Amino acid sequence: MSQVRNVKIIGTGKYLPNKKVFAHELDELLGVKKGWVEQKSGVALRSFVGNETASQMAAHAASEAINEAGIHKEEIDCIVSVSGTMEQPIPCNAALVQKQLGLSESKIPCFDINSTCLSFVTGFDTISYLVHSGRYNNVLLVSSEIASVGLNWEAKENAILFGDGAAAAILTKTPENGNSKVLAGHMETFSDGAHYTEIRGGGTRLHPNNQNAVETDFLFDMNGKSIFKLSSRNIGDFVDTLLAFSDCTMDDINLVVPHQASGMAMRILRKKLGIAEAKFMNIIHNHGNTIASSIPMALHEAIVQNKVQRGSKIMLLGTSAGLSIGGIVFEY
Amino acid sequence: MSQVRNVKIIGTGKYLPNKKVFAHELDELLGVKKGWVEQKSGVALRSFVGNETASQMAAHAASEAINEAGIHKEEIDCIVSVSGTMEQPIPCNAALVQKQLGLSESKIPCFDINSTCLSFVTGFDTISYLVHSGRYNNVLLVSSEIASVGLNWEAKENAILFGDGAAAAILTKTPENGNSKVLAGHMETFSDGAHYTEIRGGGTRLHPNNQNAVETDFLFDMNGKSIFKLSSRNIGDFVDTLLAFSDCTMDDINLVVPHQASGMAMRILRKKLGIAEAKFMNIIHNHGNTIASSIPMALHEAIVQNKVQRGSKIMLLGTSAGLSIGGIVFEY
Repeated sequence: MSQVRNVKIIGTGKYLPNKKVFAHELDELLGVKKGWVEQKSGVALRSFVGNETASQMAAHAASEAINEAGIHKEEIDCIVSVSGTMEQPIPCNAALVQKQLGLSESKIPCFDINSTCLSFVTGFDTISYLVHSGRYNNVLLVSSEIASVGLNWEAKENAILFGDGAAAAILTKTPENGNSKVLAGHMETFSDGAHYTEIRGGGTRLHPNNQNAVETDFLFDMNGKSIFKLSSRNIGDFVDTLLAFSDCTMDDINLVVPHQASGMAMRILRKKLGIAEAKFMNIIHNHGNTIASSIPMALHEAIVQNKVQRGSKIMLLGTSAGLSIGGIVFEY
Repeated sequence: MSQVRNVKIIGTGKYLPNKKVFAHELDELLGVKKGWVEQKSGVALRSFVGNETASQMAAHAASEAINEAGIHKEEIDCIVSVSGTMEQPIPCNAALVQKQLGLSESKIPCFDINSTCLSFVTGFDTISYLVHSGRYNNVLLVSSEIASVGLNWEAKENAILFGDGAAAAILTKTPENGNSKVLAGHMETFSDGAHYTEIRGGGTRLHPNNQNAVETDFLFDMNGKSIFKLSSRNIGDFVDTLLAFSDCTMDDINLVVPHQASGMAMRILRKKLGIAEAKFMNIIHNHGNTIASSIPMALHEAIVQNKVQRGSKIMLLGTSAGLSIGGIVFEY
């Protein structure tokens, strides 16, 4: 069954916090030999928050996307936060973004969609059905992530991958004479890997006030080898399925925008799928892995750098905690 | 524009944890006079978790819903957690539910939708577009909430409202000869009230390891009076809008299933909207406010107690942190 939805991205934006962290600074901090951080992670430069909150970063990225879309912020009629982290456990992120955008009188509905690093892809895929049907006219999707507060610097190989930042996109229904469309979305979750990537503490199972909790329970933990095994076993078939649903071959795709997981993970993925370097968007060297912001940020850069044009076929593709693989193919 | 979606709820389920807590026990615990807890909250009996996790409760409720729907669990093709709390910050709840259901080999996509107490309503409203379009055949929506770990017993009036528990529903496309349908959904967010209901700490703004955080930062906090003012100013118009979108009057609605916020809040809401007691589902006395589980749990009870039949028009309606008001009208 065709999954086509007449949906168009009419604006994107990104925001990076002010504090810049170079790989060589982390080399020193971690007491490793010069060049180790960049070589291991592929990240030469990342940004970390100083005083910025996630909703402030979200508002910056959203404002750029709104401006790019050529609409007034009051024309947005749904705000969906698509982040893997929360600013506060309650309320949802999107309500805090509405407030930061100065839209607290607007009544715009606000809610969150979360599939960790794939949240933007899941949100785009899901909400496009509502845009196609006319339920909403201009939806703001915004990912805003502060990874830096939750990193365990004892687990160096994991901690050195991440950066903070936000990215946003505005979805609207494709005008009568337009060709923009979502061709297909697909997601698969393999919960044998549910605990391969986790923050164990901070939710209801191990509450922050739990006396038995230790500091590392509240920090990011990842078993890279197990993730690699489970995802490489499944990603080939996954991409074949997504392409079949899209009625495309990989040759039809003008640009793949992958989750910027790590330099090495992206290199392996690209080679496994046989994608030329020029068709594989890579911004990890100066952004790091910004969780769910990573894919829309790379998409924004692809647009800004003219790597895609209207009519280009784009595949967003990634893995996330869960373990999930997700992707969407659309004509920009 | 008509919002009608051909979607049918084919099964519901609920789960309450084993530990039963009577109002008089809380009277003693809190050192208040006998009868105060029940009189203030409307809750005579609630359930709190012992060793149960949220995903275990979710699996129990989901299994009942799957059984009621007469399908095999393998026929589910999307799992959406619609909870206001998380079991762990990473991964998303739905992946943990997939694992608990013994479906870790199924590849069923898993993600979360969160609008605090309205998460089930938002999830039902949003996902019904995907079911209507044929993207998914059988979607499991499940709310599972552990309020008890996050309560501040110094703020008695708030703490005494809550209970733990889970509720689930299976959505499918209405068969050719069926009449079940979603008539309309609507949501409004008023972020002037974003901090009226909150847990400030535990996210990226005030991380669990933050040395400046105090115990109460990680506990539920609510300014009941401000919420009451903001929501009563808007709920009348909200319901008028929802009914207009549904092409219904309140007389057409066979049952209103409100968020079980508190005995008093529900009494005021019912009178304000002029709804007869018999048409207003109330299960707070033996469940408490179970956050996002509250609405699907009350819906499940309405079905089990034969308060609704196929063909009944049902309105789900509630307020949540954000502050948001949300509702959906559907023909069961």
